[in-house]
Amino acid sequence: MSAALGQSAEEIAQRLLAGEIAAGARAIRWLDDRDPRGSALLSAIFAHTGRAQIVGVTGPPGAGKSTLTDMLVTQWRARAKRVAVVAVDPSSPFTGGAILGDRVRMARHATDPGVFIRSLGTRGQAGGLSRSTHDAALVFDAMGYDIVLIETVGVGQDEIDVVNLAHTTVIVAVPGLGDEIQAVKAGIMEAGDIFVVNKADREGYEATRRQMELMLHLRANALPDRPPVPLLRAAAARGEGGAEIVDAIEAHRVMLVESGDFTHRAGLRLRDQVMGLVRDALAQRALEVAGAALLADVDARRIDPHSAAARIVERLMQQGSVAA
Amino acid sequence: MSAALGQSAEEIAQRLLAGEIAAGARAIRWLDDRDPRGSALLSAIFAHTGRAQIVGVTGPPGAGKSTLTDMLVTQWRARAKRVAVVAVDPSSPFTGGAILGDRVRMARHATDPGVFIRSLGTRGQAGGLSRSTHDAALVFDAMGYDIVLIETVGVGQDEIDVVNLAHTTVIVAVPGLGDEIQAVKAGIMEAGDIFVVNKADREGYEATRRQMELMLHLRANALPDRPPVPLLRAAAARGEGGAEIVDAIEAHRVMLVESGDFTHRAGLRLRDQVMGLVRDALAQRALEVAGAALLADVDARRIDPHSAAARIVERLMQQGSVAA
Repeated sequence: MSAALGQSAEEIAQRLLAGEIAAGARAIRWLDDRDPRGSALLSAIFAHTGRAQIVGVTGPPGAGKSTLTDMLVTQWRARAKRVAVVAVDPSSPFTGGAILGDRVRMARHATDPGVFIRSLGTRGQAGGLSRSTHDAALVFDAMGYDIVLIETVGVGQDEIDVVNLAHTTVIVAVPGLGDEIQAVKAGIMEAGDIFVVNKADREGYEATRRQMELMLHLRANALPDRPPVPLLRAAAARGEGGAEIVDAIEAHRVMLVESGDFTHRAGLRLRDQVMGLVRDALAQRALEVAGAALLADVDARRIDPHSAAARIVERLMQQGSVAA
Repeated sequence: MSAALGQSAEEIAQRLLAGEIAAGARAIRWLDDRDPRGSALLSAIFAHTGRAQIVGVTGPPGAGKSTLTDMLVTQWRARAKRVAVVAVDPSSPFTGGAILGDRVRMARHATDPGVFIRSLGTRGQAGGLSRSTHDAALVFDAMGYDIVLIETVGVGQDEIDVVNLAHTTVIVAVPGLGDEIQAVKAGIMEAGDIFVVNKADREGYEATRRQMELMLHLRANALPDRPPVPLLRAAAARGEGGAEIVDAIEAHRVMLVESGDFTHRAGLRLRDQVMGLVRDALAQRALEVAGAALLADVDARRIDPHSAAARIVERLMQQGSVAA
């Protein structure tokens, strides 16, 4: 299959721009593996990006985000939209969660060329998840998918980083997780454009809805410049509420395009991606110049961490002068 | 009060080393605010660190970690140990969660000079939480606290980063959160040294315990070099299970000291802190050289993010040569 697909970045770029799924999967694998062909490919396809609406779906574990995502995909397909899903899935070295999840979820849409689902794990690198997600979103965008949906598993800082990439962020809450809702409130409330209470057929729905209404009221007072946000009801396992959520996502896209924010948010996302790549590259160089002796001096408490860091930065800059 | 306390880093360092709480609070505020006096102070106190046992407490939101932490503090105080708590609390610009939490929790131990509780919020800076937590742990260590307990709110990547700082990591699970447990499993299972099922008086305890046993069995197979880890039972709201957890934390400390890992883990923590400071400093310089024109070219899709990042790194290195 490798031979049939071709190996060059240019060839994969052409096939990918024609919408070929195998070429897209290859591209994402190269980017994920830091294969130099990945960067060459990105350079070839980048001019063709900027059209897809990036939609983030986040909320506490147990909120039924995967099921909700599947429902949204089905709804978009009924509206003849092509959809790519990036399932952000911190994986463990001993569970291999990401790969398994990918297979299970792919099965459902396996025969539909209008849907591309890809799980991305963290692989333990700081910033690695954010980098891979950025790259995958660009590939899907260039492939012509109308929607790139990024689904996260939790509500930590890395999830906030991921939803910061989105044009439109959907926050999913669920009845019966009082403290969860608190976590959502504390960390991510201001990032939401659309709020959904899922599993609305469960006991406690009304109480959760009232909690969310109160929080949205507080938010509106605290962030008076932001437009009002919809609070929707869903029971994704029963297929209820998908049309309303997709309507709200579409309405948000129209609003963003009209205000110029569609392009503006994409610009912030690209800036974030560039600076993340710069940080990774510099961290790598810094490790090379840090030196075992200096770190041993820190270990022995002969030099404190702040002073050691200043010395490493100084060394790196001097190395730059030697290299130039 | 400021005048009475004195303003110089040297004076605060001396008072802090004598265990004065107001001086410790001042030091942490300087470090948190990136006041240059913070770095000077750290340099003065660093040689006095390395004695405290750093204990991380993490688990899903709703697992009752705050209540559990309070129970452990009470238990340590009964054993005449001095304890500092860093509650890592991602705060929202409109809830001010960290400050409120601090006040509520301080009230309980307000008259006990053997307990120091400090909440740290994220303030929206990438890596900022990890930096502040490192710094606070060093200050508490220098102040002579026997235990520095770091408590997180969630199970995201930033929490994993935080528990990576610890000598001893306690993972707290809770009955009735099936998907939560999955999240714990996926992200953080291998980081744990001690596992606790809290709220053990709740329905579903036995099922959760069996799930945890299964996961620990899988972990033991996957990580055969790691020592077996205890799985404990607690009902912190009723004050049950604290003695056993503190016993396990103490036993872990003894094991770490005997194997040399107590110093080794501290070394990894310091290395992580140094490289984090280096990354922050370089990211700041990179932003300065990035240039609006280059970022505008990315916006206009004339240059792709990977190529733009490479160009910024190149510029920064050239700037180094000019500066030298």
